[in-house]
Amino acid sequence: MVVIGGGFGGLEAARALAGAPVAITLIDRQNHHTFQPLLYQVATAALSPADIAWPIRGLLGRQANVRVVMATVTGVDTQKREVLAEGITVPYDFLVVATGARPSYFGHDDWAAAAPELKRIEDATRIRQRLLLAFERAELIADPAEQKRLLTFVVVGGGPTGVELAGAIAEVAREALPRNFSRIDPRTARVVLIEAGPRLLAAFAEMLSAYARRALERMGVEVMTGAAVTGCDAGGVDLASGRIEAGTVVWAAGVRASPAADWLDAPHDGAGRVKVAPDLSVPGMPEVFVIGDTATIVGRKGRPVPGLAAAAKQMGHYVGALIAARVKGAPPPPPFRYRNFGDLATVGRNAAVVDFGTLHLTGLIGWLFWSAIHIYFLIGLRNRLVVALTWLWSYLTLQRSARLIVDP
Amino acid sequence: MVVIGGGFGGLEAARALAGAPVAITLIDRQNHHTFQPLLYQVATAALSPADIAWPIRGLLGRQANVRVVMATVTGVDTQKREVLAEGITVPYDFLVVATGARPSYFGHDDWAAAAPELKRIEDATRIRQRLLLAFERAELIADPAEQKRLLTFVVVGGGPTGVELAGAIAEVAREALPRNFSRIDPRTARVVLIEAGPRLLAAFAEMLSAYARRALERMGVEVMTGAAVTGCDAGGVDLASGRIEAGTVVWAAGVRASPAADWLDAPHDGAGRVKVAPDLSVPGMPEVFVIGDTATIVGRKGRPVPGLAAAAKQMGHYVGALIAARVKGAPPPPPFRYRNFGDLATVGRNAAVVDFGTLHLTGLIGWLFWSAIHIYFLIGLRNRLVVALTWLWSYLTLQRSARLIVDP
Repeated sequence: MVVIGGGFGGLEAARALAGAPVAITLIDRQNHHTFQPLLYQVATAALSPADIAWPIRGLLGRQANVRVVMATVTGVDTQKREVLAEGITVPYDFLVVATGARPSYFGHDDWAAAAPELKRIEDATRIRQRLLLAFERAELIADPAEQKRLLTFVVVGGGPTGVELAGAIAEVAREALPRNFSRIDPRTARVVLIEAGPRLLAAFAEMLSAYARRALERMGVEVMTGAAVTGCDAGGVDLASGRIEAGTVVWAAGVRASPAADWLDAPHDGAGRVKVAPDLSVPGMPEVFVIGDTATIVGRKGRPVPGLAAAAKQMGHYVGALIAARVKGAPPPPPFRYRNFGDLATVGRNAAVVDFGTLHLTGLIGWLFWSAIHIYFLIGLRNRLVVALTWLWSYLTLQRSARLIVDP
Repeated sequence: MVVIGGGFGGLEAARALAGAPVAITLIDRQNHHTFQPLLYQVATAALSPADIAWPIRGLLGRQANVRVVMATVTGVDTQKREVLAEGITVPYDFLVVATGARPSYFGHDDWAAAAPELKRIEDATRIRQRLLLAFERAELIADPAEQKRLLTFVVVGGGPTGVELAGAIAEVAREALPRNFSRIDPRTARVVLIEAGPRLLAAFAEMLSAYARRALERMGVEVMTGAAVTGCDAGGVDLASGRIEAGTVVWAAGVRASPAADWLDAPHDGAGRVKVAPDLSVPGMPEVFVIGDTATIVGRKGRPVPGLAAAAKQMGHYVGALIAARVKGAPPPPPFRYRNFGDLATVGRNAAVVDFGTLHLTGLIGWLFWSAIHIYFLIGLRNRLVVALTWLWSYLTLQRSARLIVDP
């Protein structure tokens, strides 16, 4: 069988088949699995790439029935049952597609250059470089208007990633950088968070949205809700209410699925997500499964299963167990059911929101819970210790350990 | 006054003037100081860039009389006493040039693309990418000759950097990667260390050179001494004795100074190093000092001061103290004298060589001493703890924590 994608879903599917009599080929275009929930910390110089990424070969090295192939998949021949990737073809009996999502610029892909996304390690280091270079350039420049523009940072999208990014950029400007510059005062930097919908963190309870907004505003972030971006270029962003001249824009709004629906010629929603059957297979192709952000399925209470790491892992585990059962000739498991263990987002130092449905956590308690959960879900003892140590150090000193501009 | 370069020498010069009544501008083209002795560990996936690099602004943030400018210096006007950098000019009364060295391809700069150097963080991550990608490509390819070429790694230059790199590449192939690949056996990789001179580590005692060679050969490294490279391209390297087809070549032979001698129109040696006076000033320009790898000066016993971090730091400290004395109207310090505290190089796990002149250390004792010294000289508690933890983890598991291929 073939698994395409070494993210949360694909990795979990391969692991769930550890003891099963199947030969698995896992294909990913990158050599590493990335812990995406902490990518924003790499983008804001708090953590290093290797703290939140692991070689897929290393993660699966002890699982004898897995072969890892680093290659970019270009298509799937569902008739011949073959995956096509960079001149090689890999036959499959079962196929699991877990290729994740890309950002959606809502039809304006030309905005991508001015407003990078935050999906991969490369995106994070690129954003880190833009962020740090903006302060360096502002320090050198004499023109006050250009200086002001360079010190304006816009984050588009008020979901967890946007909230976390905006909060972290404000912390960089207000806590880590002051005293390091002679001509500019980094604390005067303007950080703007733009959300098209009526409130931040739409998936969370309303009181938590309101808390996050207050906490961000206390940190000096300007929050604009009900504000849709109508244009975006190297000089700034356009809104219905006017233009914001900005040196750095980061895109954290909207995602669309990878081209898996095209490869499979499968029914999909407007965001390109494959509409899967209750057992996560593609209708009409019982041997092909689509999971994680690449799939869409309605969960309990008629709400779609969210595009979260936890959901992708549950789907991966489900599909692995289902294939193991089918290979053994055992009865198939009941339809997939998403178990929601809660939503988390951090705003900044001592401020996070946790939504368990009935229980809400905010402030220091929420932040400690958020930190503990994220360290727990990191892979490997070294990384847990290093991240815990780095966070403790940052907490005590307000410094950020990865303030490197490389290849400017 | 102006300091050009935030390496070991420039940083030390600025620090030595901490209390002095001088306004210092430190200019560097990068925003970070790099601990070059451990760059080879970033290149071989053992450490992350941020473990061995620190923002210069952060390092000097508490020193009120320093202003840091991130810009590339393009020249010096010694008549007007101004430094020129990216459209700005910075006037000086005293100038300290500490711009380090670049690799020397002995007149064949076209070899640089095929055989990258190891001077900056970017070089290290580029070499890491080539190294790891070579195994990935060999795993995908069917042609045995091309597979063999991809699994051949050549290091040119048998000084400390070359010895350390060759040993670390052998450890990656033989310890970290086995069991991670299905079609290739990484242990069959060929690692070749090429030195034009008669022995490795020419600055060390002969018995230590012989020990290093034996230790490398025990690790499976082919050591070729008395072998000069006559050609270098994307497919491999040419020697008088024949060609070695190789997928990865790293250049660790010969350095030449940065263009400081041109900027200053100062007398220099064949490698471009400025011939400085006994007080490290440029002859005829008592207000201009050149230090570290950019300068050449004869030390005790008629031997030139070596191009080592320790020498650069001593020179930086000396020049700082000299300028402080001159500003105060105090008598100048006696001529610069290099104090040699010993030479160190590591070969691999449990094997390093330490040359204190009369005392020689090798094996586990040498290796523990080498590790302790390098952790001691790292900057900041967090980095010391993280590097110590990472080394301990690698020692126990044989794994490497930064096996990331980014932007392949």
